[in-house]
Amino acid sequence: MELPVKLQALVDGLGNIPGVGKKTALRQALSLANWDKSELLEFAKSISGVVDLQRCGRCGLYAESDCCSICMDPHRSKEKAICVVETFSDCIAIEHSGQFRGKYHVLGGVLNPLLGIGPEELNISHFLQRIAEEEVELVILAVNPSVEGDATCSYLKSKLPFSLEVDRIGFGIPMGGSLEHLDILTIGKALENRRKM
Amino acid sequence: MELPVKLQALVDGLGNIPGVGKKTALRQALSLANWDKSELLEFAKSISGVVDLQRCGRCGLYAESDCCSICMDPHRSKEKAICVVETFSDCIAIEHSGQFRGKYHVLGGVLNPLLGIGPEELNISHFLQRIAEEEVELVILAVNPSVEGDATCSYLKSKLPFSLEVDRIGFGIPMGGSLEHLDILTIGKALENRRKM
Repeated sequence: MELPVKLQALVDGLGNIPGVGKKTALRQALSLANWDKSELLEFAKSISGVVDLQRCGRCGLYAESDCCSICMDPHRSKEKAICVVETFSDCIAIEHSGQFRGKYHVLGGVLNPLLGIGPEELNISHFLQRIAEEEVELVILAVNPSVEGDATCSYLKSKLPFSLEVDRIGFGIPMGGSLEHLDILTIGKALENRRKM
Repeated sequence: MELPVKLQALVDGLGNIPGVGKKTALRQALSLANWDKSELLEFAKSISGVVDLQRCGRCGLYAESDCCSICMDPHRSKEKAICVVETFSDCIAIEHSGQFRGKYHVLGGVLNPLLGIGPEELNISHFLQRIAEEEVELVILAVNPSVEGDATCSYLKSKLPFSLEVDRIGFGIPMGGSLEHLDILTIGKALENRRKM
């Protein structure tokens, strides 16, 4: 059965969202078709609204204006710490933990020569400039563990002043995890990263 | 951490879709924020496009124009059968089965006095008019099994000409289902609806 063109266009649009399959897209489209006109128009507006979503000129987080709320917060500057993340989502995850009160820097990915992603493709030169200009005592590299992530961290460490404290986020057994079900790489890392009790 | 207003608006919009929780909405919004401008605008357009989605004047299915492709199909009319469904989605499900080649009629729900849904709130009077005007020999009530669905079917049967063949869709064990895991109501129905081998 052929769907009306307009409905099919909506199904296709929803199906382009990662994690939304064909069946879900159809179910969601039919549900949207029952929404009020004002709700639909508002939703459509919210989507076209992110076209010109601004990024903070300093750290690269999505922001309301040229500068994000974290970079503008004087309490954040007092910490003299910068946490380097791959993406905005990683920053949100760290913020939710409530364990870091410094500022951030979004790389926009990791070095990947096979995909043609070199230091110039990432937000690195600007990061090194920030280190030179801002009062920073600690850099935490919260880059995900992978061959590319490891290479990116080594590269950053080599470019940063020797006097600067550069830590990488800890790897090991996740809370609630069980040794029985974890992969050997994680267990290896956990043994390596053991701490004196 | 506060999201930029535009991003939060998108997260809220996505979160209004049934089956999309807060975490999924945030993940999807961040993914949408990386889309190209043209893709975003097209997606937004597809949503505002369903504002004036037309319904077939005869059967009530979503349609490209005043009349849907099924009602316009002469092969469908030859069958002289109308399948009554609650919603457009139910019609799609039956179409996917490929077992029915007649026409449809969408009720738009079932009778529910507690929610104030009487015969006037449903697409019933128009259905009775179709029965009087069109050449129909068989009506299949493909209304879902529930107290309200049963009442709706009884009501429709009482309003239809006595000479007309009116069937209700069969209830029983679904294909691949196992007696062990099915509820007693389904098993009761399956025993009631047993057929001679």
